[in-house]
This record gives sequence, structure tokens and C-alpha cells, in this order.
Amino acid sequence: MNEADQRATMPGESDERYQEGVVDLLAALAYGELSAFDRLAEDARTAPTLTGRAALSSMAAAEIGHYRMLEQALAARGVKVDQAMQPFAEPFEAFNSSTAPHSWLESLVKAYVGDGLAADFYREVAEWLDSGNRELVLTVLADTGHSAFAEREVQAACADDRSLRDKLTLWGRRLLGEAITQAQYVVAERDALSELIITGSGDLTGIGAMFRRLQSNHTKRMGQLGLG
Amino acid sequence: MNEADQRATMPGESDERYQEGVVDLLAALAYGELSAFDRLAEDARTAPTLTGRAALSSMAAAEIGHYRMLEQALAARGVKVDQAMQPFAEPFEAFNSSTAPHSWLESLVKAYVGDGLAADFYREVAEWLDSGNRELVLTVLADTGHSAFAEREVQAACADDRSLRDKLTLWGRRLLGEAITQAQYVVAERDALSELIITGSGDLTGIGAMFRRLQSNHTKRMGQLGLG
Repeated sequence: MNEADQRATMPGESDERYQEGVVDLLAALAYGELSAFDRLAEDARTAPTLTGRAALSSMAAAEIGHYRMLEQALAARGVKVDQAMQPFAEPFEAFNSSTAPHSWLESLVKAYVGDGLAADFYREVAEWLDSGNRELVLTVLADTGHSAFAEREVQAACADDRSLRDKLTLWGRRLLGEAITQAQYVVAERDALSELIITGSGDLTGIGAMFRRLQSNHTKRMGQLGLG
Repeated sequence: MNEADQRATMPGESDERYQEGVVDLLAALAYGELSAFDRLAEDARTAPTLTGRAALSSMAAAEIGHYRMLEQALAARGVKVDQAMQPFAEPFEAFNSSTAPHSWLESLVKAYVGDGLAADFYREVAEWLDSGNRELVLTVLADTGHSAFAEREVQAACADDRSLRDKLTLWGRRLLGEAITQAQYVVAERDALSELIITGSGDLTGIGAMFRRLQSNHTKRMGQLGLG
């Protein structure tokens, strides 16, 4: 696609279908923030030290700051966040219950891998949005400090434990599979959102390429944890 | 005690024992904030609506803002918050496990009654502090919005349910008993803190009067919930 064509397919503020897709995207992000809050708060409870507990509690609190920004952006469009989030609650919870961590380290890997995948996905989609919404999405994706914390903890725990490393590597692969399954389910259910993605990525080949990029970033991310 | 005497017993910044008591007080408050965060995050998870869940998650996030202020105040004195909090973890957790709520409404009553009692106690102690610390304590005691939320929910649930109201009334009494037991245990274990309280309240008669005020405020608070 040449530059002129690409401009022609860029969304306009006036396009109703595009606006619907954006509302879905912001609502999915908002539910993701609530869900991340919940997971970090739960992890904080099982943290082996008070320092770890305070660190994770603070990260959870930062997710709520992001949630509030999305709530305001939706309210500015006359949309109530709790209603808009409703369709996303079930698939997110299905992902969470199919990947319930059994240890502190599994929790950390899940948060790291899950946040990373979600952020990669939303960043790709952000490229197709008008500048105001793109900026909003990129702001709420800002890392709340969890990543560096998880890398330190997982690397330290696996340094001298080959079998733990293998176990957590398998865990990371399972998370990738479950995340892609649920993401496909969400997109298939939401027409405006899937149109946004198909229009943005150009065609089905574009979507395939996007999924390959997500997988390749996932592999790099596992490497950052010292896994895979 | 006349005014001149009272001034004479007011603490000086230079008094080492007083400073130790203040560190204990700020550390107990800090652990209380972490603990409140944890409890609100847990309640958020069981909230019957997404609106309730987002509201409680936001309140939890606000507690962490208060925690950070206490952490900074302790750091300014060269004290690490996680070390200073350590002695308070056990009694707080003992209170929490002896009063584990069995329902959403029991959770709300516990948060309301527990926060109210703690705030009353700290406000009394704040009166005996130098002005800088008094302001800090009063700031971190600011209600994060939980109270009005709990009042609405409990009143609505009990309006047409006499037996629920009786059950929650008994629950409130039990919470008061357990809270006073654990508070006495904490103070007895921490010499500098108990000196701060004895000096501040004047004598044992003063302490007795303080406990009677706490109980009387508790009764009023139960009334606000439509209980008791």
C-alpha cells in the first residue's frame, strides 16, 4: 500500500464505526487495568517480604491511575466505563482462571508475560488511531515498574535452579497460547473492534504478520527473564 | 493540669524517647495502610457490580498514596519503613484472621468500623505530637471515600431485613472487642509508644477516658450504618 492509499484509509473522527471500535478498545484496556490491579494486589499478598509487598501494592495503585484516565476518556464520549467493560469481563476472567498461578514466581511470570503481550498488541493498534487516542493508549501502557522487579526476582530464583527454569519456561509458553486464544475470542465477538484491526493491518496477511511479531517479542521477553 | 504545665510536658524534637514513639506510631500507621489496601483490594474482588469493584479498587489505590507519604516521612528520619513496620505485622494479621468476613456486607462493616476506630485512636494521639507530625497523621487519616460507600450499601441491604441487621450488629460488637484486644497488645509490646500515650493522656485515668470515647464513637458509627 503506498502512502496516499494509507492516508485514505486513516480513520476520521466522523466515522461512526471507527468510534465504536475505539470505545471497545478503550473499554478492553480499562478492564485490563482493573484486572491487573486485582492480580498485582493478590501477588502483593503472597510476596515473601514486606518490601516486595509494598512494591507490588504501589504498582497496583498505579494501574488504577491509568484506569481513571480511560474512564474519563470514555465519559467524554458519553460512555459509562462499567457498561462498556462488561463484554470483556468474561474472556479476561476465563484467561485468568485457566492460568491461575501456583507460586509467587508463576505469578510474576504471568504478570510480566501477560502485560508485555497486551502492551505489544495495543501498541500495534494504537498506530492506526487518531493522534489523541493514540497518545492516551500509549500513556496508559506505561510500565508501572513491575517489569524490572519481575526480571530481578525471576533471574535470581532461576540462577542456580535448572529445573525451576524449565518449569517456568513451559509456563510462559502456556500463557502465550491461552492469551492468543482469548484475544481471538474477544476480537471475533466485537464487530467494530475486529473491523478496526482488519482495516488497520490492511488484510488477513497483515494480521498474520502482527501475530508473528507478537510471538517473536514474547520469545525475547522470556529471554529477559532468563527463561526459554 | 494548667496551661503552663501542659506546655512543659509537650514533646520536644530533641527528646529521643519521644522520637522513638513517633517512629512506632508512623510505622503502625504505614502497616495499617498496607493492610487496608489489601483488604479493600480483596473486597473489590467480591464486589457484586463492576461499579463497586472500580470504586473499591480506587479507594485501595488512595491508601497506597498515604502509605508513600509515611514511607517518605520515615525515610527523612533515616528509618526504613519495612523494618519499622515489622513488629506491627503480627498483631494486625492476628486481628485480620480472627475477624475474617464471610460476606460482602461483613467486609464492608469491618472496613468501616476498623478504619473508624483506628482513625479515632490516631487522632487522639495526634493531639500530643509536634505540629509537623500531627499534620502528617491527620492527612493520612483522610477518608478515601469508603465510608459513604459502605453506609449506602449496608443501609440499603438492611432496610428490609431485620435478621441481617441483627447479625451485622453482633459482628460490629465482635470487631470492637478484637480491635481493643490487639491494640492493647501492640501498645504493651512497644515501650516508646506506650510512654507516648501515657504521657499524652496524662495518666491511667486519661487512658480510661480515651477508651470510653473510642467506644462511644463506635456506637455512633454503628448507628450511621443503620446498625446497633
